[in-house]
Amino acid sequence: MNDIGVVHRTITRAARADVDALAPFGVSTLHEAMGRTGLMRPYIRPVYPGAALCGTAVTVLLQPGDNWMLHVAAEQLRQDDVLVAACTTECEDGFFGELLATSVRAQGGAGLVIDGGCRDIAALEEMDFPVFSRAVNAKGTVKATPGSVNVPVVCANAVVRPGDVVVADVDGVVVVPAERAGAVAEEAARREANEEDKRRRFAAGELGLDMYAMREPLAAAGLTYID
Amino acid sequence: MNDIGVVHRTITRAARADVDALAPFGVSTLHEAMGRTGLMRPYIRPVYPGAALCGTAVTVLLQPGDNWMLHVAAEQLRQDDVLVAACTTECEDGFFGELLATSVRAQGGAGLVIDGGCRDIAALEEMDFPVFSRAVNAKGTVKATPGSVNVPVVCANAVVRPGDVVVADVDGVVVVPAERAGAVAEEAARREANEEDKRRRFAAGELGLDMYAMREPLAAAGLTYID
Amino acid sequence: MNDIGVVHRTITRAARADVDALAPFGVSTLHEAMGRTGLMRPYIRPVYPGAALCGTAVTVLLQPGDNWMLHVAAEQLRQDDVLVAACTTECEDGFFGELLATSVRAQGGAGLVIDGGCRDIAALEEMDFPVFSRAVNAKGTVKATPGSVNVPVVCANAVVRPGDVVVADVDGVVVVPAERAGAVAEEAARREANEEDKRRRFAAGELGLDMYAMREPLAAAGLTYID
Amino acid sequence: MNDIGVVHRTITRAARADVDALAPFGVSTLHEAMGRTGLMRPYIRPVYPGAALCGTAVTVLLQPGDNWMLHVAAEQLRQDDVLVAACTTECEDGFFGELLATSVRAQGGAGLVIDGGCRDIAALEEMDFPVFSRAVNAKGTVKATPGSVNVPVVCANAVVRPGDVVVADVDGVVVVPAERAGAVAEEAARREANEEDKRRRFAAGELGLDMYAMREPLAAAGLTYID
Amino acid sequence: MNDIGVVHRTITRAARADVDALAPFGVSTLHEAMGRTGLMRPYIRPVYPGAALCGTAVTVLLQPGDNWMLHVAAEQLRQDDVLVAACTTECEDGFFGELLATSVRAQGGAGLVIDGGCRDIAALEEMDFPVFSRAVNAKGTVKATPGSVNVPVVCANAVVRPGDVVVADVDGVVVVPAERAGAVAEEAARREANEEDKRRRFAAGELGLDMYAMREPLAAAGLTYID
Amino acid sequence: MNDIGVVHRTITRAARADVDALAPFGVSTLHEAMGRTGLMRPYIRPVYPGAALCGTAVTVLLQPGDNWMLHVAAEQLRQDDVLVAACTTECEDGFFGELLATSVRAQGGAGLVIDGGCRDIAALEEMDFPVFSRAVNAKGTVKATPGSVNVPVVCANAVVRPGDVVVADVDGVVVVPAERAGAVAEEAARREANEEDKRRRFAAGELGLDMYAMREPLAAAGLTYID
Repeated sequence: MNDIGVVHRTITRAARADVDALAPFGVSTLHEAMGRTGLMRPYIRPVYPGAALCGTAVTVLLQPGDNWMLHVAAEQLRQDDVLVAACTTECEDGFFGELLATSVRAQGGAGLVIDGGCRDIAALEEMDFPVFSRAVNAKGTVKATPGSVNVPVVCANAVVRPGDVVVADVDGVVVVPAERAGAVAEEAARREANEEDKRRRFAAGELGLDMYAMREPLAAAGLTYID
Repeated sequence: MNDIGVVHRTITRAARADVDALAPFGVSTLHEAMGRTGLMRPYIRPVYPGAALCGTAVTVLLQPGDNWMLHVAAEQLRQDDVLVAACTTECEDGFFGELLATSVRAQGGAGLVIDGGCRDIAALEEMDFPVFSRAVNAKGTVKATPGSVNVPVVCANAVVRPGDVVVADVDGVVVVPAERAGAVAEEAARREANEEDKRRRFAAGELGLDMYAMREPLAAAGLTYID
Repeated sequence: MNDIGVVHRTITRAARADVDALAPFGVSTLHEAMGRTGLMRPYIRPVYPGAALCGTAVTVLLQPGDNWMLHVAAEQLRQDDVLVAACTTECEDGFFGELLATSVRAQGGAGLVIDGGCRDIAALEEMDFPVFSRAVNAKGTVKATPGSVNVPVVCANAVVRPGDVVVADVDGVVVVPAERAGAVAEEAARREANEEDKRRRFAAGELGLDMYAMREPLAAAGLTYID
Repeated sequence: MNDIGVVHRTITRAARADVDALAPFGVSTLHEAMGRTGLMRPYIRPVYPGAALCGTAVTVLLQPGDNWMLHVAAEQLRQDDVLVAACTTECEDGFFGELLATSVRAQGGAGLVIDGGCRDIAALEEMDFPVFSRAVNAKGTVKATPGSVNVPVVCANAVVRPGDVVVADVDGVVVVPAERAGAVAEEAARREANEEDKRRRFAAGELGLDMYAMREPLAAAGLTYID
Repeated sequence: MNDIGVVHRTITRAARADVDALAPFGVSTLHEAMGRTGLMRPYIRPVYPGAALCGTAVTVLLQPGDNWMLHVAAEQLRQDDVLVAACTTECEDGFFGELLATSVRAQGGAGLVIDGGCRDIAALEEMDFPVFSRAVNAKGTVKATPGSVNVPVVCANAVVRPGDVVVADVDGVVVVPAERAGAVAEEAARREANEEDKRRRFAAGELGLDMYAMREPLAAAGLTYID
Repeated sequence: MNDIGVVHRTITRAARADVDALAPFGVSTLHEAMGRTGLMRPYIRPVYPGAALCGTAVTVLLQPGDNWMLHVAAEQLRQDDVLVAACTTECEDGFFGELLATSVRAQGGAGLVIDGGCRDIAALEEMDFPVFSRAVNAKGTVKATPGSVNVPVVCANAVVRPGDVVVADVDGVVVVPAERAGAVAEEAARREANEEDKRRRFAAGELGLDMYAMREPLAAAGLTYID
C-alpha cells in the first residue's frame, strides 16, 4: 500500500447502479449493513452543516504541506467521483479551498474527504461543495513533492481503494468496497425496513428489554435489581 | 462509587418544583450560583445547535463499546428524567441513536448526557431530542456486559447521583445536587437580577474597573500604567 | 516579550484606512498575501456561525483562571479595536461572557480573540459579538493576579503587537503587522483579481496541471502514469 | 462534592493494617480485585521511572494556576498520608516542586497524585519522592484563591474521599475506599495466588482457550476457523 | 478489510532469512529503505526503555474493551511471530498484561504491537517482553465479542497483513510487506553503508550544503543571505 | 516575525560569560527568575533521560515535512550554539536524526530544540546529543521549500530571537533574552540561595503556612477550618 510517485489512470469503479442504491442511506446504517466495518475515525467532520456526499473514490496520497497531487487527481475524475485524500503523515494544513473545489466540480467531482485541513469554508458552503476534513485551516501549501493518485490509501484509519464507494454525512464517513456495494445497499434496505418497525414499537412504549428479549440474558450475566 | 451489575429501581428525584425553577437559567449562571461547582468538563458538547435540557438524572454506567445498559435504563425513566451515561473507560463509540431516542422519549425521557459518542445526529435534530456527548460517531456497539443503572457516576469529571438535576445548553453541562436544587434556583435568580443591573451600567459605558472598585486592589497588586 | 504587571496606555494603531482596506478580505487570502505568515494555530474557532471581525489589537496577557486584565483592557479600547487575549499558560476557563461583551462593545470594541475559553455563547450570538476562542466553557474565573495590557503577546503561536490588525473569520485568525497593513491589503486585492480569472478558467474545465504548467515539473520529479 | 473554601481537620483514615496489606499489590491487581473500579484515567503518569506509593489520602481541591492549598494541606498530613490534588478545571501548571516535596516529606507525606503539572523532576527523583501527574511543567503558580482540603474530590475521573487508600505504580493510580481496604487486600491476595497457577500453566504451553474453556463460547458466538 | 468473526489458520509468512536480514536495522532506516512507507503513527510507543522486536505478524482485530481474540491469536503463533493488534475503534484499555505475555512467549511469540493499552509494565520489563502500545492502562477487559485473527488490519494508520514483517524500536513501528522483505533488507544495507560515509564526512566538518550540492537549488528557490 | 526565505549571517549572541552564568541553573529556577516568562509549552520533551543543554540560539523556521533549512542553519553555527527550530505549521515529522546531529556537533552545535519530531533516538542518546522535541517519529522529510534561518521565531508559543539563550532540562525549555541573560543569572543565584534556606526550614518541619505568613490572608480570603 502507499506506492509513491505513481498515477493510475485506469481504475474499476463500483457500478453506477450500486452507487445510486447506496446514496439514500445514512452512514450509520451503511456501517451496520457492512457488519460494522469501513468507518473512518470520527475526527473527520463536515466543514459546514448539511454537507453530504456519495460517490466513487479517486484516491490521493498527499505529502505534508503539499497539495500538488490534488491537481494531478483532478484530471482523473469522472462524473460523481469523490476525492479521498490521505497524507503520508499527520498534517492539518489547508490543502484545499475554493479554487480547487471549482476545478473538481468542473471535472465532475462530487466532493472531498481529506485526512488534513481545508479552507475557504464560507465559499465552499455557498457552492454547497461538501468537504469532510480533520481541520479547518487557512494555512497554505506548496507544490513540490510527488505523492500518488489512485493507489489504495489509509485515510483516517480506513482503507480506501480507487473505485470504492464513499458515503459521508453528519455521522461520519464510511467506505464500501466496490464489489460489495450492491449487497450492502440491499442489506441497508433490509435494516431500514426492520428499523421502521422497531421505531413504531419503541414510540408506542415497548421497551428494548422486551423487544430484544434481553431480560433473561441480563439476569444470566448477573444483573441485579434493587428496590 | 461505581458498583457494577446493579439497577436501583428506587431513587429520590429532586422536587419537580425545584427542577422547574432551575429550567429558565443558563448553565453558566447555575455554575456560578453553585459557587463554581458541578460543571462537567467542556469536551461534552451539544450534537446539534440549540440543543438544551433540564431534568432529573437517571444514571447509567456503560462498558466500552456496549450500550446494553441504556436499554435497561430506559425502563427506569419517568417523565422529564434525563439519562446521564458515564463509561468505565474513555470510549467514543456511538452508544446512542435514533431508535433509543424514540424509546427514551416514549418513556418520558427528556434527553441524554453521555461521556461517549452518539449517532443519527440528523434524526435527533429533526426529533429535537437533545444529546450532549463527547463525540459524534457512527460506530455501533454490542450488548454483552452489564454495567449499572442509578448508581452515582462520574461523568466528564463531575459526580452525578440519581435524582440530581442536570442542566445543559450551549455553554456546557452542570449538575445540581437534588437537595440543593431549590436554593440554587433562588441564588441564580438573585444573580440574574444583579446581572441585569450590571448589564445596563456596562452598556452605558461604566467600566468594570469602577463598578467593581478594582483600581485600588490592582495598584496594590503592583499593576503599573505607562503612557 | 510578556512583561507582566504593566498597562501601556499609548499604542500606535494601524491606520484606519488600512484597516478598512483589509476588512473585505478573507483570512486565507490575507495569510497568502503576507507570504503565508501571521496565522494563529487552527484550534482557535468562532463561537457561533458567521462570527467575523477586523480591527486593531489591544492585547491582554491573562493569568490562568483569572480575567482581571480583561476589565483593565476594556478601558484602553477605542472604536473598532479588537481584544486579543493570550494566557501565561494553557487554560480553557470561561474568561469572557455576556457582561464583558457588553462592556467591551460600549467602549468601542469590535470583538475578541482569546487563547482560552468563553461562555454565554447564546447571548454573544444574539448580540452578534464575535469571539474566537479555543473552547466554550462555563467555568468562571477570579480577579486576583495581574497580567498585562498592550504588551506584545504570543496568542495561539502568533505574535500580536498592540495596534496590529487582527482579522478573523470561519477560516481562522490572521495578524497583520500595523506597518504592513496597507501593503498587505494591496497584495490581497491583486490576489483576488488574479483568483477571479483562475476561478473562471477552472469552472470552464481547464486543469490546474495546465494552468500552472505543472506537467513538466511533475515528470521531472519522477511522477509516473500507469494505464 | 467540591465544597470550596473549607479545610476538614478530622478525617477517618483507612486502618493502618489495611494500608499495609494493600501495599504489596500492583495497581492492576487492585483494580481487578475491586471489580474493575477505582481507577484514575491513564493520563496520570509517574514523573520518574520506578515511582510508586501507597497511603491514605489527604485531598486537595486546587484553583487553576494556584498552589496555595497545597501549603494548607501540608499541615493536615500524618505519617504515610498521600496528597491527592484535584483542580476545579483542567490545568497543567507546575503546582508542585522540590520545596513542597521537602515540606510534605517532613510532615510525613509519602507522595503526591495531582491532576495537574509538576516540576523539579530531577530533584524529586533524587529525593525519591513519588509524584504522579498529568504533565511535567516548569510554569509557576500563585497563592491567591482558596480551594479546599479534605473534601471528596474527583481526580482524573475517580472519586477520592479523605482517608481512602491510594496506590500508584507504573500501571497507573487506583483508589480503594477506606471501608473496603481490608477486603480488597484479601481479594488481591486470592487473585495473585490464582495468577501464580495460571502463570505456570501458560509458561508450560497451555492455551487460554483451554484454561478458560473458551472454545465452546467462541463457537457459539460465531467465530469461524478457515484453513 | 476487517472481516469480523474469522480466524485464518494458514498464513504465508515472510521468509525467515528475510526476517533475519531485516532484524539488524533500525525503524528509521527501514522506513527510508521502503520509500518512506509502512510507518505506524508515532503515538505507538515502547512500554519500557530498550524494548525492540522484529518478526512476522499474526494479526488480531479486537473489539473495544475486549481481549478475547488475543487468546485466540495465541494459538496461531509460531516461533518469532509478533502479535499485531488493531481495534474496531479507538480504545486505550489494558488489553494485555503479564499472563498473556507468558502465554505468548510460551507459544513462540516475540512481542506485541497494539493500537490500545497495556498493563503490568513492570513485569513485562522484567521479562523483557517487548510491547509497543498507545497507552499504559490498568483497566481490565472482558471476553464477550468476537473479532478476527489473521485478517489484514489497519493498526495506527498502517496496513498489516498476516505474515508481513513488523520491526519496532524506540523510533516507532514499521511494517514491511512479506514479499518485499528481502529487497528492503538489501536497500537498508545500501543505505547504511552510504550513511557511514556521510557520517564520517559530517564529523569531519563537511556541510550538508556541500555534500548534497544544495547551494544552487537553494538560491534557485529564492533563499537570500543577509549579512 | 517569520520572514520567509532569508538567512541572517550576522547575529548578536548573548555574552559567553552570561551563558556560562546561566548554565548551572535549572529551567524552573530560570523561569521564576524571569518573572515567570520565557517558557515553552510543556509538550516539548527531552528525547532521552538526562538530556540537557544551554547555549545561544541559532533559529530556524521550517516548512512542514521539510528539513532543508536545518542544513542551511548548520553552516551558521558557532561553538555552543543551540539550534531552535520552529515550523510554519504543526508537524511531527522526523526532521532531525543522527547524521544531522553529527554535522551540528562538528560545527560546534550543542543541541536542538524543535517544535516537530526527531528520530534516531538510540544514536542520539549514545552520542549524548540533547534534543528536545514534540514527538519521536521515524517519518522522513524532503528538501524542497525554503524557510528561514536566524529570524525571530515562535517555538512552542515562546518567542526566540537569534542569540537568545536557550536552556533545557527535564522540566522543559526556557528562553532568556540575550540582553537580560546576566541579570537573570544573578536573580537565579539569589533565588537558589534563598531556596536553600527554605529547604532547610521545610525539612526541619516548618510549614509554608508559617514561613510565608499565609494564615492571615487565608482567613481574610474566607478559608474555614472544620474539626
